[in-house]
Amino acid sequence: MTAGTQDVTELLLSRIRDVPDYPKPGVLFKDITPLLADPVAFTALTDTLAELCTAHGATKIVGLEARGFILAAPVAVRAGLGFIPVRKAGKLPGATLSQAYDLEYGSAEIEVHAEDLAAGDRVMVIDDVLATGGTAEASIELVRRAGAEVAGVAVLMELGFLPGRARLEPVLNGAPLQALITV
Amino acid sequence: MTAGTQDVTELLLSRIRDVPDYPKPGVLFKDITPLLADPVAFTALTDTLAELCTAHGATKIVGLEARGFILAAPVAVRAGLGFIPVRKAGKLPGATLSQAYDLEYGSAEIEVHAEDLAAGDRVMVIDDVLATGGTAEASIELVRRAGAEVAGVAVLMELGFLPGRARLEPVLNGAPLQALITV
Repeated sequence: MTAGTQDVTELLLSRIRDVPDYPKPGVLFKDITPLLADPVAFTALTDTLAELCTAHGATKIVGLEARGFILAAPVAVRAGLGFIPVRKAGKLPGATLSQAYDLEYGSAEIEVHAEDLAAGDRVMVIDDVLATGGTAEASIELVRRAGAEVAGVAVLMELGFLPGRARLEPVLNGAPLQALITV
Repeated sequence: MTAGTQDVTELLLSRIRDVPDYPKPGVLFKDITPLLADPVAFTALTDTLAELCTAHGATKIVGLEARGFILAAPVAVRAGLGFIPVRKAGKLPGATLSQAYDLEYGSAEIEVHAEDLAAGDRVMVIDDVLATGGTAEASIELVRRAGAEVAGVAVLMELGFLPGRARLEPVLNGAPLQALITV
């Protein structure tokens, strides 16, 4: 790790706020909004993620609704790559592929426009937080069902006390899973 | 209008897709996802909106959940300004200001973190589409209730057959409302 990387990591960490008992008692929520409000930190985050996308030979960027959009869209512009939104079911107007995933209680579905991804595309999936890995795993499935390849998954923050990494690594078949910070 | 502006307008228009009968029969939906998937068009959009923010002396960028995030976040990074998310009710973990607005049937509520805006801030509100202007008007209210000033509202696309502009202009007290394209 270079000195620059260390500096960015410390800057990003310093801009994440702990909110106790949100969304329910006993949970310590990691709030990224102070980071987004600081243009120096948000630019450093964007540049770092964009460099990862370039290093992995990505040709398209997938962002996950809703907070993932906030990170993935600037990364796509910075890296000069197309931005593909993965949305909650029923939000995309064209022909979609859908993928269900489990929630704590019940399940949910995410979708992508089928024509936005194709064979030959190398896709980076960008999100803010890796928690249990449910939406990330479903998005990997969507990318592959569209015929494209997953270049990697990159997140700002990994919640190391949850089994997201253990869930995703077997699915990724060697493609990188990178978190800029782990809490 | 310069030749460059004309070129950008035509580029943006060429990347918007008409989807008939979405979300319901008789509605012609304007889908911006082909524009987002084209890095040349998305970069031109980002640069054009960022120049507007700079020209109006903005100090912060407000983006509206969810599609507004996709435009406003890269604009904030490009302009070097803080990004402030306005979210649907219940999604922000800190102390919030809430504002209700009318929907076709019923009403909804949006929120902002109260501490993200303050006196002295000049805020640009960025969204993808101006339709009836309900969420834009509610976001203007939120900005002012937080003590900040509205520098302007900028959208990619105005639906000229709907009364969004007529609704917002009296509220804006002379602050600009700009759409890069009108359909």
